[in-house]
Amino acid sequence: MTRVTALAGGVGAARMLSGLAAVVGQQAITAVVNTGDDTVFHGLYVSPDLDTVTYTLAGASNPGTGWGLAGETWSVMEALAAFEEVAGRSLTWFRLGDRDLATHLYRTGRLAEGIPLSQVTAEIAKRFGVAARLLPMSDNRVETRVVVEEDRHWTGDGPGRGWGPRLGEEPGRRGPGGPTREVGFQEYFVRMQHSVAVREVHFVGAPTARPAPGVLAALAEADAVVICPSNPVLSIGPLLALPQIASAVKARRPSVVAVSPIIAGKALKGPADRLLLELGHEPSALGVAKMWAPYAGTIIVDNADAGLAGQIEALGLRCIVTPSVMSGPAEAAKLAEAVLGAGAS
Amino acid sequence: MTRVTALAGGVGAARMLSGLAAVVGQQAITAVVNTGDDTVFHGLYVSPDLDTVTYTLAGASNPGTGWGLAGETWSVMEALAAFEEVAGRSLTWFRLGDRDLATHLYRTGRLAEGIPLSQVTAEIAKRFGVAARLLPMSDNRVETRVVVEEDRHWTGDGPGRGWGPRLGEEPGRRGPGGPTREVGFQEYFVRMQHSVAVREVHFVGAPTARPAPGVLAALAEADAVVICPSNPVLSIGPLLALPQIASAVKARRPSVVAVSPIIAGKALKGPADRLLLELGHEPSALGVAKMWAPYAGTIIVDNADAGLAGQIEALGLRCIVTPSVMSGPAEAAKLAEAVLGAGAS
Repeated sequence: MTRVTALAGGVGAARMLSGLAAVVGQQAITAVVNTGDDTVFHGLYVSPDLDTVTYTLAGASNPGTGWGLAGETWSVMEALAAFEEVAGRSLTWFRLGDRDLATHLYRTGRLAEGIPLSQVTAEIAKRFGVAARLLPMSDNRVETRVVVEEDRHWTGDGPGRGWGPRLGEEPGRRGPGGPTREVGFQEYFVRMQHSVAVREVHFVGAPTARPAPGVLAALAEADAVVICPSNPVLSIGPLLALPQIASAVKARRPSVVAVSPIIAGKALKGPADRLLLELGHEPSALGVAKMWAPYAGTIIVDNADAGLAGQIEALGLRCIVTPSVMSGPAEAAKLAEAVLGAGAS
Repeated sequence: MTRVTALAGGVGAARMLSGLAAVVGQQAITAVVNTGDDTVFHGLYVSPDLDTVTYTLAGASNPGTGWGLAGETWSVMEALAAFEEVAGRSLTWFRLGDRDLATHLYRTGRLAEGIPLSQVTAEIAKRFGVAARLLPMSDNRVETRVVVEEDRHWTGDGPGRGWGPRLGEEPGRRGPGGPTREVGFQEYFVRMQHSVAVREVHFVGAPTARPAPGVLAALAEADAVVICPSNPVLSIGPLLALPQIASAVKARRPSVVAVSPIIAGKALKGPADRLLLELGHEPSALGVAKMWAPYAGTIIVDNADAGLAGQIEALGLRCIVTPSVMSGPAEAAKLAEAVLGAGAS
């Protein structure tokens, strides 16, 4: 049996994991999942990436969104919206479906009993019939914080692509930077719909967080380690911000295969391309390859980026060019085969 | 305007308050509500008595149960039940309806922001359009704890009424008392359905808890103070366990009117009669009168207890005999008129 350990974020990772499961079976897979996005909403501990991976591998996720549960109902959110007038603000910008809420109630109750997140995650996976091993990156709290510039807006994806001047600033000139505000990941990602400029990203707690039980062994013992096509900064970044995880991945470099989430300079979904640009990386498969070069022996890029293969290989990574858009289960399985072929060789 | 301040528990109090509102209008009423039953379920702070009073005064309560919301749905509980197999225990013995959950999410979120319970309670009342002033007895946590004897069972309400021998104990003899266990109020009341013997009741935190803002003024300034027909030990007991509330009620004794929740030796609902017996009180309107004698100048007892009036008056309370079963709004209003007539005179 080929044992696969994957570093995973949310939707992109969940699709990659489904593809891998189609090839080697869920039992062969360990996913180490980002918990930097975890947030407490209304007292409930929510783990968005763990839930997306769990629901997807259970075949229970909403096919329209990739996250949340299929056939969800929204009674609680509707009733909560009735409090917004007295609250004077939105209470429902992070949508929690009725059945999804049960997961959060269960997780929160168990955590309050002192059960570590890794054990609760295993229980939730079991309840959903997921045979893959799902591990939070850590049982310690690591919190992704984003420093945003709220008054700077994206000018579009044309030749002048980038963040425009701040309000009141002369076009074409960029001042020393406007007022910034540090927010939690979900506030940036969901509430602001990632349409503000990002100055910095922090992973609070990461330097001292310990990998969850089983994470280091799963990285050490896997036949192949996969860096899923998740946002390199926001989804994989938190995992590698744990020094022990970073070292363990580097130690397996020849067997580590990364899949670029950037295709032809764009993220399929989400703000990865913009974020790379803002934080000083190149928003391209080459830029991703530069980020992963210390960790991965191989990177898989889409056919659209075939022209970058030479530059990527010059970095010391093997570059495999193959269709990488997972538009359905067949495409995901096909990509998984390429990943596993690269990891095994 | 006749200003009324009521000491309130759950369903019985909510009906009494509705009756009072029908006579003097909600604006004239302040309810000081028991929070000893408040519990955290799955991370959510639940205030059962406050919610029962709020929903009832809003005309939104479930007419079948007296608590919870009318037309409630149960999607979250159904989904939570799916976790019971992995949990190996019931997670849904305290039923939280979908729309009711929104109240708990709102309250929990606000409390986590550092907003005191009294303010959150006012916001929830406003959202439900309740014009009565609802005050938790305290913004400090007071927790009703019940010491139960799980292996002693009720023998019925016949002549031999009482708690039977413990398992393995010789009938007719009662040993020194079996093993006991201290549980929270909801575990006793809902999970065990109050069908176990009670040894003791504690109100943890009460001696040092401060009445919520407005409570003492509402007691001092009311034209009439009403002790609602709630469980004297479990529902009114927590309020009077706060030394400042007990003193404030005693200071108004001539204007305090209590309504007996015991009619012909029985509680209309719940375990009040048994509990009085177990804790050394008489399970009768006379027993209730003895408990309230230091606090109330008047007690209202049902026609069924007319025969006790002489003994009650010998305690130094005025005894008013009137129909006291609030089977509907008309009966509740009629009882409220008797209460207000007694308080005003």
